Amino acid sequence: MVISLVAGGALVAMEGRNTLMTGCRSLDLLWQGCWQVHWAATSAELWVTQTSNLPVYTLEEVTKHCSLESGVWVTYKGGVYDITEFVAMHPGGNKILLAAGGALEPYWALYAVHQQDHVLEILSEYKIGVLDTESCQKQESTIPLDPYSAEPTRHPALQINSLKPPRVDPETYRLEIEGLPGGVVSLSLSELKSRFPKHTITATLQFAGNRRSEMNKVKQVKGLNWGIAAISNATWSGARLRDVLLSYGFGPEVAAKAKHVQFEGLDRDVTGTAYGASIPLNKAVSEEGDVLLAYEMNGEDLPPDHGYPVRVVVPGVVRARNVKWLGKIVVSDEESKSHWQQNDYKGFSPEDFKSAPAIQELPIQSAITHPAEGTSGDCSDREGTVKGYAWSGGGREVVRVDVSIDGGKTWHVAKLHTSDQEQHPAPPPPPGRAWAWKLWEIDVPIPHRAQELEIVCKAVDSSYNTQPDTVAPIWNLRGVRSNAWHRVQVKVSEGLKDQK
Amino acid sequence: MVISLVAGGALVAMEGRNTLMTGCRSLDLLWQGCWQVHWAATSAELWVTQTSNLPVYTLEEVTKHCSLESGVWVTYKGGVYDITEFVAMHPGGNKILLAAGGALEPYWALYAVHQQDHVLEILSEYKIGVLDTESCQKQESTIPLDPYSAEPTRHPALQINSLKPPRVDPETYRLEIEGLPGGVVSLSLSELKSRFPKHTITATLQFAGNRRSEMNKVKQVKGLNWGIAAISNATWSGARLRDVLLSYGFGPEVAAKAKHVQFEGLDRDVTGTAYGASIPLNKAVSEEGDVLLAYEMNGEDLPPDHGYPVRVVVPGVVRARNVKWLGKIVVSDEESKSHWQQNDYKGFSPEDFKSAPAIQELPIQSAITHPAEGTSGDCSDREGTVKGYAWSGGGREVVRVDVSIDGGKTWHVAKLHTSDQEQHPAPPPPPGRAWAWKLWEIDVPIPHRAQELEIVCKAVDSSYNTQPDTVAPIWNLRGVRSNAWHRVQVKVSEGLKDQK
Repeated sequence: MVISLVAGGALVAMEGRNTLMTGCRSLDLLWQGCWQVHWAATSAELWVTQTSNLPVYTLEEVTKHCSLESGVWVTYKGGVYDITEFVAMHPGGNKILLAAGGALEPYWALYAVHQQDHVLEILSEYKIGVLDTESCQKQESTIPLDPYSAEPTRHPALQINSLKPPRVDPETYRLEIEGLPGGVVSLSLSELKSRFPKHTITATLQFAGNRRSEMNKVKQVKGLNWGIAAISNATWSGARLRDVLLSYGFGPEVAAKAKHVQFEGLDRDVTGTAYGASIPLNKAVSEEGDVLLAYEMNGEDLPPDHGYPVRVVVPGVVRARNVKWLGKIVVSDEESKSHWQQNDYKGFSPEDFKSAPAIQELPIQSAITHPAEGTSGDCSDREGTVKGYAWSGGGREVVRVDVSIDGGKTWHVAKLHTSDQEQHPAPPPPPGRAWAWKLWEIDVPIPHRAQELEIVCKAVDSSYNTQPDTVAPIWNLRGVRSNAWHRVQVKVSEGLKDQK
Repeated sequence: MVISLVAGGALVAMEGRNTLMTGCRSLDLLWQGCWQVHWAATSAELWVTQTSNLPVYTLEEVTKHCSLESGVWVTYKGGVYDITEFVAMHPGGNKILLAAGGALEPYWALYAVHQQDHVLEILSEYKIGVLDTESCQKQESTIPLDPYSAEPTRHPALQINSLKPPRVDPETYRLEIEGLPGGVVSLSLSELKSRFPKHTITATLQFAGNRRSEMNKVKQVKGLNWGIAAISNATWSGARLRDVLLSYGFGPEVAAKAKHVQFEGLDRDVTGTAYGASIPLNKAVSEEGDVLLAYEMNGEDLPPDHGYPVRVVVPGVVRARNVKWLGKIVVSDEESKSHWQQNDYKGFSPEDFKSAPAIQELPIQSAITHPAEGTSGDCSDREGTVKGYAWSGGGREVVRVDVSIDGGKTWHVAKLHTSDQEQHPAPPPPPGRAWAWKLWEIDVPIPHRAQELEIVCKAVDSSYNTQPDTVAPIWNLRGVRSNAWHRVQVKVSEGLKDQK
């Protein structure tokens, strides 16, 4: 028997989980930057302000509260909110002040990540009143239209948080490279494609906040409620970053001074700041680092969502450093100064950010993709199929996944494979270059009389690193590197118990 | 206040623990191979056979039981033992059959690891009788004398299991290299020293079975009862393996076929088999791999104990691959065929040895060296000092150690340093090349009314890998890669409680 999903479609809508099982198909529909990285963990319904006995304010009164000194008020769909206390907790940092004294709608239109129940719940806690009718009408006429409304629609299996990749013209596209002896290099797309050998790798990209929702259950974190689907796998082709840097003068002289390679995206936030990140020099220039300036994904031009025309693929490294819509490369003695390198995507809580290294490699990870939490299964042949993924950072190969259906008391070793199609199993990767996840599967005997199963998985990588048993000891305020054993509760169906 | 050791000297005798805190001083007094790697976890007192009413056998009867078919009997100090059932459990494998039908003494004289209470206890379970007086006298006259009795004594702080490194004459020493295009290379010690630049690294070597004793408490493992001291740190100097291989013809042609570099020691067991191990080619030839053919330790010639005149130092990799008394290097498409590569030092239990990779890098590790288990402390100023070490394999730097004194409910961040002498703190290592352990220390407030403390430590490395919370889920029959949170129970002294 198979512990099947009660409603597969519902699962897709919730987390895009079942598409995880399609091997090389990418789920990397994520924007870069903490203000643009999230898919909806739950569907973002339009939110109607409830009628109440709260005070009525004019827009004029709201605009006076536009700073931390005067208090930070914002409006949303006719409601007035005093979010002064929330500013320090905003995952996107001070950018929230752009909306101070005015409407949230234009910012939420750009950063659709906000349009979900979780965010609206947080906002509702700060409601202090409603706008008068005149102010509402005035606002409606001034809030700008969505500039991206003509974009093509995405596959229905994917839950989209942001619909707005930058538009980049391949004819005028230029990739700039700074920090090499010959001065600034400017490369066109066709030069990048023709001057350097095309190299192909299959690599998994994981968002730092994958499985954040489990940390949220321990204690509230600052960040959206991600499930297990903030991870993707695809085959990428492009020029090796190493080849490009070497051909424009990178050598021992540069290596003696430089320590990092910085990347800058062509996407800018409302303040005009480009997305930025950096990786250590040795990863960037090592032959075995396999860092690509990728222009193809799964054998086709990069889709706009994934960074068209060029993105960096830094295999084995957190998704945040895999910069999309790449505009500039800087070889430098310093890390990127960007918010996302310095003040976010670090593995400890903010009070320790100074001593915490910016996340590069992520630790060993695994999760159960089937069955889903809370589903119930038909156990007619007393066996249940459990499936999932496992991956580790730094090219460390997953060498084992153990699965338990009794909450971790006893374990079964799962079968590992590289994709759903095992007709042509891939040869094992060279040591230290296992960039792609392993999918795993196991048929587990279901004990008689079982009414509920607590399914647990844990993985081991080639350095024998293991996942921590529990979430609490690795909890951190931003909810990153969440890699404790994954647990799913399922019910054994009533029908079966009657047959017994 | 300091939670001080009740009897520091006793601790040294037990585990050599406090010498762990001397920074670069090495504790690497370990032989290679599972039959020769262990220090005594407890002192190995001479063992006197107890009188009993067991049957009396002649030597002739014993010699008839010399195979698994006829049963395996051995004698030890006048006792007769039927160890047939133990053969499969012997950590040294079938080599135990060398003693079948005769005396254990000559083998235990060579592999002094056996001379400890734990081993004698195991042996005692198999006692079936005693030798008659005539047989005893006959045996005494034939058991060979210890050939190493003239060796110098070791420092009294170290507990020695084996006193017998091979004697290697530096004048006639030759290092052979096979598998390169020009045929077999034969290098003298002076050639190795003069032809290649001297390179120096500080690296921690950890035995695969460090902290095995904690797994033993969960369920008995096959292996001796190691505490937390099977780890050492030293500064090593020698030729880079990379430089040597490149100078004798290693290049793309060899790299296209070869996958491993094998090492063979000059030490041989009683069957004449040399100790062997191998590492992946990319580790061996990478500039950042820092693999040395070391001839100096802490600025002096390698001591005989540590592999004089030449040993391999493979930083970031389990001690078992750091072959001492190096005699041969083979560049090959295969892993070493040795017992220790194929049938031991794998991270899962033997039933999974086929799929288990030979251990190379070890996972993140930490342990409390002070205070010691079961000690009690003077808490006059209501603060306790906790100290320890932390290390991770693969050059991953330890970035944080958390310490708890309430069994893991609350945590304090410890201060990390590179040695006891912090006047000249070492610059941070380049990413991926943090080969040396970090020592850590913290003063923790002791709660009023506390009578007992459960001290716990856990570390995080630069890839944000963490130690597992508990031992049971990583248990394996050989008791390797034991890296759960380390726990120590101590008492708060009675004297203090009276003062309160």
